[in-house]
Amino acid sequence: MSITAPAGFRAAGVTAGLKASGSPDVALVVNDGPDHVVAGVFTSNRVVAAPVTWSRTVVGDGVAHAVVLNSGGANACTGPEGFADTHRTAEHVAEVLGISAGDVVVCSTGLIGERLDLPALLGGVDAAAAALSADGGPDAARAIMTTDTRPKQALVTRGADRAAAAAGTWSVGGMAKGAGMLAPGLATMLCVLTTDAAVDAGDADAALRTATAVTFDRVDSDGCMSTNDTVVLLASGASGVTVSREELVEAVTAVCADLARQLVADAEGASHDIAVTVTGATTEDAAVAVARAVTRSNLFKAAVFGNDPNWGRVLSAVGTVPVEVAPFEADAVDVTINGVTVCRGGGVGEDRTLVDLAAAREVSVVVDLHAGDATATVWTNDLTHDYVHENSAYST
Amino acid sequence: MSITAPAGFRAAGVTAGLKASGSPDVALVVNDGPDHVVAGVFTSNRVVAAPVTWSRTVVGDGVAHAVVLNSGGANACTGPEGFADTHRTAEHVAEVLGISAGDVVVCSTGLIGERLDLPALLGGVDAAAAALSADGGPDAARAIMTTDTRPKQALVTRGADRAAAAAGTWSVGGMAKGAGMLAPGLATMLCVLTTDAAVDAGDADAALRTATAVTFDRVDSDGCMSTNDTVVLLASGASGVTVSREELVEAVTAVCADLARQLVADAEGASHDIAVTVTGATTEDAAVAVARAVTRSNLFKAAVFGNDPNWGRVLSAVGTVPVEVAPFEADAVDVTINGVTVCRGGGVGEDRTLVDLAAAREVSVVVDLHAGDATATVWTNDLTHDYVHENSAYST
Repeated sequence: MSITAPAGFRAAGVTAGLKASGSPDVALVVNDGPDHVVAGVFTSNRVVAAPVTWSRTVVGDGVAHAVVLNSGGANACTGPEGFADTHRTAEHVAEVLGISAGDVVVCSTGLIGERLDLPALLGGVDAAAAALSADGGPDAARAIMTTDTRPKQALVTRGADRAAAAAGTWSVGGMAKGAGMLAPGLATMLCVLTTDAAVDAGDADAALRTATAVTFDRVDSDGCMSTNDTVVLLASGASGVTVSREELVEAVTAVCADLARQLVADAEGASHDIAVTVTGATTEDAAVAVARAVTRSNLFKAAVFGNDPNWGRVLSAVGTVPVEVAPFEADAVDVTINGVTVCRGGGVGEDRTLVDLAAAREVSVVVDLHAGDATATVWTNDLTHDYVHENSAYST
Repeated sequence: MSITAPAGFRAAGVTAGLKASGSPDVALVVNDGPDHVVAGVFTSNRVVAAPVTWSRTVVGDGVAHAVVLNSGGANACTGPEGFADTHRTAEHVAEVLGISAGDVVVCSTGLIGERLDLPALLGGVDAAAAALSADGGPDAARAIMTTDTRPKQALVTRGADRAAAAAGTWSVGGMAKGAGMLAPGLATMLCVLTTDAAVDAGDADAALRTATAVTFDRVDSDGCMSTNDTVVLLASGASGVTVSREELVEAVTAVCADLARQLVADAEGASHDIAVTVTGATTEDAAVAVARAVTRSNLFKAAVFGNDPNWGRVLSAVGTVPVEVAPFEADAVDVTINGVTVCRGGGVGEDRTLVDLAAAREVSVVVDLHAGDATATVWTNDLTHDYVHENSAYST
């Protein structure tokens, strides 16, 4: 179930002392090859942390040997000194592992605007390198947690059903952290994916972009966008199985979807996971835009917290999407909450008291625009007292 | 201080029984002329309540004699029957006052998706018509409240300094309701403005659009947009003073600014009023876009609730604005909170512990983009436990 399940990878997670809590805070992931293919997707925020600036360059040539990740500090808004800290971290990993610093992806997560404790971090790198193991995936997953209440890992295995001529299974493993600031253009989210399939850098990049666009990019917990979001895919080729781009897309998407749902299920202070599905849109982009408008409505999300199937708030959120983005007629829209069509044709539908939001954590909202055939789902959470509490107390 | 301060207006506020609380819920405002000029600005939501559809038509010819307003029900998402209710309300007002139904603006506010109690509402119209008075402004302001904790009224008087040849004062009065869902394209907000100046419909329309664009449209309490927002300006000409478009713009803007600040100060569950000012932008639109991104950040707003001057959350919100909307360099941005420049050049600035957010309800955030000369301010509130509570319990 972890990033070390695919062949060719070792990992470790250790406690370097970056977190006051004394929890693990440095993870190291090494691709032992034979291939060292990498692809990366990063936050679309214009304010990016030093490690994002660094890692964008590292993945540019499609080759990387290792990923070092720390929790306990985002190294964002830390100026040239912060970038030097990231650079020094990569160089230290390179020295310890006998590789090039330009092949070391660096990821950080935690508070913005504070320098990292570099000596502690570099000590953590040493300890992690010494602890590297083919069973180290779960430790690494734990070391990247911030306000996550549990580590997030996923694994899919493919190829068992192949004809003997092309025998051999291959897999994609993943780990992620993130429990708030989940938004389009990714979340305060770090994710490392590993595969032992033999793929080229172009296919890895295409697979990662396709997969993240329909998974992580459609998780919008609180509408906020982080400075540090990074998703990295490492491919070792160690299975000896060469896979097509389509096969890779399918497997990487499955792992990302699994991790994305785990992120929503562990979002800061949430008591409901809400899937907003828009059907009957003219295009997928239109469906996403309408779904996102609903997932961004504080009023609707507070209503769900109160177990109130307030479809009027859904409809007023839907109505904020400009007509050029999503053509539809307001008086044609149906809204179905947990299977009950509480709004029909823009007006009162079935009895809203039939909707029981208190029964389960999962909430399904389906908005049918009756304007076309396209559909999309965006996931979010409710807006709770605990969300406000955790985010007002986070840095104090 | 009220809408009946300008000459030529009578108003009333009565209890019709639309609210379970027994509070006043129907208001009537009558323009006795000699002019009957009207202008209106409405929500930009594509999902609009029946009274908005009706009133857009009423103000289209620039003439109106009366405004009837009810709290205790929004009459939104109520289908053709809801529109018939609005039509019938206007006809009843017209009968009682001896005017045309096409000259009666109708406004409603309250829960979405429920029919109004029309007999109660029409009985309220009768009672309000009987109670009409040149001192009735304050009663009307009270009758349009929903979760507002106090009525909002404003008045400016102009012309006292004119030369004797053009002697005569004139004034603009206003009342508004709204305590949540305050967002661009207006709030769940009803506002009636009155003036005894002699102006034509074109000037009234221009003044209202100019004033709302820089006042109500820059109040963004929770990012949500209502189905019912309506701002109406009535001009009676009863002062006998003809004023220029510029004079009218200035006075109407002053009244709207006063009311907008009162709305922010009374927003649902808020404990801080936050003014986000963006300076050094290339254009005013760019400044507004950046300011709005900050006012929409739940993470930043929760931090303010916790009295935490978390400038990293300001910067990460600023960074979400696309470069084509607001050109600036991320490492040039300064952030000043309550006079302390906690972020300088995109990195750590003055000591954040110097910022005391607990001292006052008002919070000032200044973001200097260092990219141009344009500036704009958007007002919002913090995100609090009480906001979540009020909005999760609103309809239950």
